[in-house]
Amino acid sequence: MADDDTFMRRAIELARLSLGETSPNPNVGCVIVAADGTVAGEGRTAPVGGPHAEVRALQMAGERARGATAYVTLEPCDHTGRTGPCSKALVAAGVARVVVAVADPNPLAAGGAETLRAAGVAVEFGVTLQEAAREAMEGWLTAVSRGTPYVIWKFAATLDGRSAAADGTSKWITSPAARADVHRLRGQVDAIIAGAGTVRADDPQLTVRSPLGELAARQPLRVVVAGARDTAAGSKVFDASAPTWLVEPGAGRTVDLPAMLRELYARGVRVALLEGGPTLAGAFLAGGLVDRVVAYLAPKLLGAGPAALGPAGISSIAEALTLDVVDLAMIGPDVRLTATVKGA
Amino acid sequence: MADDDTFMRRAIELARLSLGETSPNPNVGCVIVAADGTVAGEGRTAPVGGPHAEVRALQMAGERARGATAYVTLEPCDHTGRTGPCSKALVAAGVARVVVAVADPNPLAAGGAETLRAAGVAVEFGVTLQEAAREAMEGWLTAVSRGTPYVIWKFAATLDGRSAAADGTSKWITSPAARADVHRLRGQVDAIIAGAGTVRADDPQLTVRSPLGELAARQPLRVVVAGARDTAAGSKVFDASAPTWLVEPGAGRTVDLPAMLRELYARGVRVALLEGGPTLAGAFLAGGLVDRVVAYLAPKLLGAGPAALGPAGISSIAEALTLDVVDLAMIGPDVRLTATVKGA
Repeated sequence: MADDDTFMRRAIELARLSLGETSPNPNVGCVIVAADGTVAGEGRTAPVGGPHAEVRALQMAGERARGATAYVTLEPCDHTGRTGPCSKALVAAGVARVVVAVADPNPLAAGGAETLRAAGVAVEFGVTLQEAAREAMEGWLTAVSRGTPYVIWKFAATLDGRSAAADGTSKWITSPAARADVHRLRGQVDAIIAGAGTVRADDPQLTVRSPLGELAARQPLRVVVAGARDTAAGSKVFDASAPTWLVEPGAGRTVDLPAMLRELYARGVRVALLEGGPTLAGAFLAGGLVDRVVAYLAPKLLGAGPAALGPAGISSIAEALTLDVVDLAMIGPDVRLTATVKGA
Repeated sequence: MADDDTFMRRAIELARLSLGETSPNPNVGCVIVAADGTVAGEGRTAPVGGPHAEVRALQMAGERARGATAYVTLEPCDHTGRTGPCSKALVAAGVARVVVAVADPNPLAAGGAETLRAAGVAVEFGVTLQEAAREAMEGWLTAVSRGTPYVIWKFAATLDGRSAAADGTSKWITSPAARADVHRLRGQVDAIIAGAGTVRADDPQLTVRSPLGELAARQPLRVVVAGARDTAAGSKVFDASAPTWLVEPGAGRTVDLPAMLRELYARGVRVALLEGGPTLAGAFLAGGLVDRVVAYLAPKLLGAGPAALGPAGISSIAEALTLDVVDLAMIGPDVRLTATVKGA
């Protein structure tokens, strides 16, 4: 139904607004529409320990939830974790019908639809906006299905693929607008990963800041992949503005990246942003560990200087890593290209 | 007036359709609107020796040109070259009003507006679409204002700026759709310039072909910049499908690029397409000889292999050559970015 789409679209919007706030929980959106066809409540997953989307929407709806339809982007959970099961809350509130975009892939939390149906609530799957909802929760869905975080590799380069000039200067390749967009992106992830080389070369703080430099209330975990060489202890990445995990190399004097990602998942990270540099990005790509690429391309030419991407184990054009462009936008004077890695 | 815009927009469309066909003449579009407000004639510049846009439009309009308004993207010419002056043709046909988008920068041909006014024809400049018309004729206007061709540098690269893989393979970085678009672009220029290195490495034919491989009737001049090393005589670029100019190095064992461009202008070339490779592109950019960049970026990653652009005399980020993105489009799976060089 057209109305179903309208309300589910709003639920997906709410899910998107929660990106980066809810891990290890999914970013879910919920809209409750009363029997008279008007919106009675809206909710999105609160930060960990807080109520889920459905419970927040039910709180807003109050008595108007009786006989209502609930639109949720993800199948309501059926287990008691930090909060009670959403399935039982929907039943208790007297909701008559639940429209679900995506089934819960998490075996621990699944079963919500069955519980609802057993209590006489009509449950509908297979809405037309299933793909849009899946896209909004893609990071979380991918992460829980395989037990490692969804990894977004972000890089900035000139049109000819350089991440710095011949003399090493790189401030700034992209515009203030593009750099502000990177902070928006950082605000949607649970961890930011950088290599020791980048920490030494650029001394980035790797925090979420406003254009005026104010730290956001919530900060992702900073992860420094130390590699074979030492990392300067006085670097900004070790300041007090956010937690930092320094990943030390193992026996082979290299970091076991898959093991590092499993550990991040265990720490609750569902979506991680890889910010380079070229060597670490090459290792991630060679290991098939990147799900999405966000490239900020400045309309500049250098003709010399380090490449944005280092060796990734590819020697011929037939072996090139192929992506699918999912979004292309101007961010100020720069181009932002978002692509998914095929087969990742 | 809104009506003026409508007819001028059509004239600009006609001008765009003539790109690549008219050099050394400008690509002009003309629409003649009869006194009753309906279109009586349309024309665009014919290939050299043929009639200009105004004359073609007048031929179509016939008697309906009397009392009509003519919309032309460029000030009607006032001199007798291969054809008679358009200003006199418009007067003779009884046109009452001429709306002009861009004044003629060519001192030999200018003066058309004066001739028209002296004959009692109302002439109007300063239309709202002046910039659009200028853009449609940008190559010709730039070329005649300085006596060298407008140079478009086209390159294809992966998202990380590589024009080939580590083993030298490069077929194909971009999709069939992008390669077809390159042939469309070649069809809009008067010359295609490539370096001897590219001729040796890729053996390109540098012709305008259909997706089925058929040669277009009109072919740009092929220009091979030989540099210090010899160019293989058996290369496809020397076949019979189009004329080729092999530019030999001078005393310094390098080619004098500005002199080469002046010579191309003298040969009637107004717009040239530079197709690389990285060394020649670097030399053109270092010399400030590029007006526009068309980058075909494939959503692929290589992590190794030659860069699309070689040394251009730039060592720090502050010296980076800065462009303005004027168009961004998906061509099949690839991204086409068109940008103008600032200050060029």
